[in-house]
Amino acid sequence: MERLSSKTVYEGRIAQVRLEEFRYDDGGTELREVVGHPGAVAIVARDRDAFYMVRQPREPVDEPALLELPAGKRDVEGETRLECAQRELAEEIGRAATEWRELKRFYPSPGLLEEEVTVFAAAGLSAVEAAADEDERLEVVRVPLADLDATIDECRDGKSLVGLMLLREELREGA
Amino acid sequence: MERLSSKTVYEGRIAQVRLEEFRYDDGGTELREVVGHPGAVAIVARDRDAFYMVRQPREPVDEPALLELPAGKRDVEGETRLECAQRELAEEIGRAATEWRELKRFYPSPGLLEEEVTVFAAAGLSAVEAAADEDERLEVVRVPLADLDATIDECRDGKSLVGLMLLREELREGA
Repeated sequence: MERLSSKTVYEGRIAQVRLEEFRYDDGGTELREVVGHPGAVAIVARDRDAFYMVRQPREPVDEPALLELPAGKRDVEGETRLECAQRELAEEIGRAATEWRELKRFYPSPGLLEEEVTVFAAAGLSAVEAAADEDERLEVVRVPLADLDATIDECRDGKSLVGLMLLREELREGA
Repeated sequence: MERLSSKTVYEGRIAQVRLEEFRYDDGGTELREVVGHPGAVAIVARDRDAFYMVRQPREPVDEPALLELPAGKRDVEGETRLECAQRELAEEIGRAATEWRELKRFYPSPGLLEEEVTVFAAAGLSAVEAAADEDERLEVVRVPLADLDATIDECRDGKSLVGLMLLREELREGA
């Protein structure tokens, strides 16, 4: 599969739409609409007996307080995935971590959206000063590990489901 | 949270972008870009000792053969989620199922994209005639249940990770 051309047909403040032509191994070609995205990170941050979630408004899906892992877009030029995750953890829940591991990379909606999500596990948490651009509509929730199953049941955010189910798997394996 | 206005700023063949204004409970207002989407379904279809995946090109993420659950957009007017899943299962893997259960609904990228995914479990499979609009670049893969862990490791599609990890959970519980 080869990208033959790419033309930006809409450029908004965040959203970008491109019209791209692809040639396949069978020789055929197709025009595809692609919604651009810089990628995102999400963080499963835990201490001995709890993990951290946030609640925030998600306008595109009409949810006033969606429960999610701390996460953010990779919208700072030159920042690695890990640096982005470290920044987002500080900004969203006011924590630094000494142990970081990449758990998974995946595409949340690969038929339309360029976004790739990288999920990290973070441990060895300590408080850091709250970042200046803290969102006043974001609520931090510390969830006991004992409530992990119930949180997975409640959760309706894709990246958080992936991260929390990977955490459950690790806990089973005694990590 | 209340939507005050919605204006379509880009309308392509599939992608649609809207600029919407929201008012929050604290009285503040914000303009948000929203990428429209009719929603999607994905199906964990299994028989006694295997489940079904498909491989297909996913141009937005530059993957020539991404491994995914059978799935599709809710782009037929008046079709329920279940009817959509039944149609997609027939179109993509040529199977009907006698047992259907909804496993989960979630938002793959709620910060930008309106899409909601509904994941179904399907069992009691039988062959049906391949649908007319079968995609010649889609390859059906029958995966032994014994390879479920390895498939989760390989999988980089969000909705499929959610569905396969829910299947693993059910198998553990003896379903």
